[in-house]
Amino acid sequence: MPLMKSWVDSANTPDTDFPLNNLPYGAFLTASGEQHCGVAIGDMILDVTALEADGVIAVAGEDEVFAAGDWTAFMGLGAQIWADVRATLTALLAEGMADADGLSRYLVAQDGTQMRMPFTVSEYTDFYAGKHHATNVGTMFRGPENALPPNWLSIPIGYNGRASSVQVSGTDVRRPWGQLKAPDAEMPTFAPCKRFDIELEMGAIVGQPSDGPVTVAEADDMIFGYVLLNDWSARDIQAWEYQPLGPFQAKATATTISPWIVPKAALEPFRCDTPERERPLLEYLQAPGPMLYDIALEVGLAPEGQAETVISRTNYNEMYYSSAQQLAHHTTSGCPMLVGDLLGSGTISGPEKHQRGALLEITWGGKEPITLDTGETRSFVEDGDTLTLRGAAMGDGYRVGFGACAATVLPALDDPYKR
Amino acid sequence: MPLMKSWVDSANTPDTDFPLNNLPYGAFLTASGEQHCGVAIGDMILDVTALEADGVIAVAGEDEVFAAGDWTAFMGLGAQIWADVRATLTALLAEGMADADGLSRYLVAQDGTQMRMPFTVSEYTDFYAGKHHATNVGTMFRGPENALPPNWLSIPIGYNGRASSVQVSGTDVRRPWGQLKAPDAEMPTFAPCKRFDIELEMGAIVGQPSDGPVTVAEADDMIFGYVLLNDWSARDIQAWEYQPLGPFQAKATATTISPWIVPKAALEPFRCDTPERERPLLEYLQAPGPMLYDIALEVGLAPEGQAETVISRTNYNEMYYSSAQQLAHHTTSGCPMLVGDLLGSGTISGPEKHQRGALLEITWGGKEPITLDTGETRSFVEDGDTLTLRGAAMGDGYRVGFGACAATVLPALDDPYKR
Repeated sequence: MPLMKSWVDSANTPDTDFPLNNLPYGAFLTASGEQHCGVAIGDMILDVTALEADGVIAVAGEDEVFAAGDWTAFMGLGAQIWADVRATLTALLAEGMADADGLSRYLVAQDGTQMRMPFTVSEYTDFYAGKHHATNVGTMFRGPENALPPNWLSIPIGYNGRASSVQVSGTDVRRPWGQLKAPDAEMPTFAPCKRFDIELEMGAIVGQPSDGPVTVAEADDMIFGYVLLNDWSARDIQAWEYQPLGPFQAKATATTISPWIVPKAALEPFRCDTPERERPLLEYLQAPGPMLYDIALEVGLAPEGQAETVISRTNYNEMYYSSAQQLAHHTTSGCPMLVGDLLGSGTISGPEKHQRGALLEITWGGKEPITLDTGETRSFVEDGDTLTLRGAAMGDGYRVGFGACAATVLPALDDPYKR
Repeated sequence: MPLMKSWVDSANTPDTDFPLNNLPYGAFLTASGEQHCGVAIGDMILDVTALEADGVIAVAGEDEVFAAGDWTAFMGLGAQIWADVRATLTALLAEGMADADGLSRYLVAQDGTQMRMPFTVSEYTDFYAGKHHATNVGTMFRGPENALPPNWLSIPIGYNGRASSVQVSGTDVRRPWGQLKAPDAEMPTFAPCKRFDIELEMGAIVGQPSDGPVTVAEADDMIFGYVLLNDWSARDIQAWEYQPLGPFQAKATATTISPWIVPKAALEPFRCDTPERERPLLEYLQAPGPMLYDIALEVGLAPEGQAETVISRTNYNEMYYSSAQQLAHHTTSGCPMLVGDLLGSGTISGPEKHQRGALLEITWGGKEPITLDTGETRSFVEDGDTLTLRGAAMGDGYRVGFGACAATVLPALDDPYKR
């Protein structure tokens, strides 16, 4: 598919994340301080809430789908409505549209506009579905012979995370306190995290509910769209707490998502297969077609007031399990899935060192610090650092991107109990 | 505190769970099919939604707090409103109340009335805070030398569960399918769970939010009330999936709670200390006073169409960590807590075999089946079995109970993907 041209000129340049082919869903604050739904087009936002309020667009049979200023209600309406509204918005923004002048008053510049959470997260599940990541972490923790757990090639391993900790790009992250114990210490201490880390992930957003097991194909149909996701991780808290029931407070400080949900429809041209199976999957997990996406990803780290260094470049196509497979597995027990559930892919690492999606892997547990372009070194994230995830599927002369997924780390509080 | 007498006679008998001292919160279906808020009194329910609609009671400064038919909005109003409304309801139901005749038309018989979820579960966290349970399970899985994980005496170990799986007593539970692998099998299979189990727990309901670390005392103040909680567990799914990130689908089929939330105020006379510490707790986890409760608990198992056998008798005072300590730990990372969060205590087992709160422990992994009063044996739960948790704090001539927390197990579907 070639670039689809828009009358919004900035959407026709090859370096924008937001050509007409994309039309991702976001939520933003208007000049008067209201939260509205918008879609990104070039360097602008089309105010969908205002379009609906003025009767320019309407969802068949529904009143005020966008009045609440996030996309949760819209998601719940299902795939036919998703397609209809996307077609309407595409037509309104296409080159040659008769009333571009009239419509241009619904455009807001992205620059300087504050973004908000584009949907209400019902529940958040995080997976562990990248083989390079699982192998690296397993090697560090259990040695190379036991790197991959015995179940790993058969199950998309996941755990429930904390939905209340999910926040939109641009929200600062406070370094947490937690219970820590050095391997040679006799007793734990309660102290600020010393090994604060990122995890480069994609997030799949469940747009339709289920109440019983679903197939991989049905799971794919339930997915509304994708975001970039940074699963902030306190490695020292994690190391002490995670046996036997998994990570808990180590992952509960914050999870940052990109401001834009890229619709599944925009990613269709970029579907690809998961890597070859090393062990046959049980039938319920077998993919009926390509369910991953070819999405180039990178992580930038900028120390406070300084230039950014790209510390990782990888691709979503490295994942061993797709989000559709993860969602299908999630329903096997009969677990009800809800509109607004968020599934983190797991950390996305490629086979090479510069393709790793977490500092834990890049610096091999802090033993091999990296040197930034500024000359500083990093083992883990330091106070004042801004971490930015970026991602885009690369078309012929255009890209379908997510916008920056960024957050700055604030120092730990001196006394977390002081009000 | 002695029995408080009510003009509702059935509330004055020593064997009711619901004397005037209790006044627990529930949700029920009216004769016309609407969901209303109610409080239990003896063998009746006082229709609080109707009382508000008719102007008999009102919450200061609020309209229609009870119109939605569950207690979530009320919880969010805070402890002063909880106390005010409790005082109003207590006065309305007290012996000697002038207009008992007029009020009696707001009473509905519990018998034959269908109960609904009394609140909307925001997020669900399950803990592992019973020392006898952790020791028993650890001994089975890792041997007696490594029974308790090294962190166990320092951290109330918990993991995030699945809020969408929480259902009210009386809702059937369908035996799940899942990915299983026998220790001697080379490959896993996808099959119905063969080792379906219960876990006897208490659930604490968070009634006030937090956005940063809270002390144990503050955490105690945030708790609205308690329910009985049965954390259904598929032991064979759990054994294969839980390393390294904890239980996932094994715990996602269903979690059953009692229909009545017992207010913290009703449990005040029954506060007790946690057992003696075997290792000093870090300061942030130290309890400023008694935070557990003396609540007698039991589990009944009734095969389909047959009489029930009580298979376990224990007490909430066996727990090593209180819900307030668990909630305080939950916030250490800065994790925001929400109105409607539910914290499972972890399985409550006493030191003796007949005091164990899960069949896994009672039958020692299925190796020592128990014989029911009917003559049948059980290693794990069988299809058609009804499992009922009961609990009550025992006062002088009265009890403060939760009502039955019951569910019947339906057979697994022949084909979970057939619609």
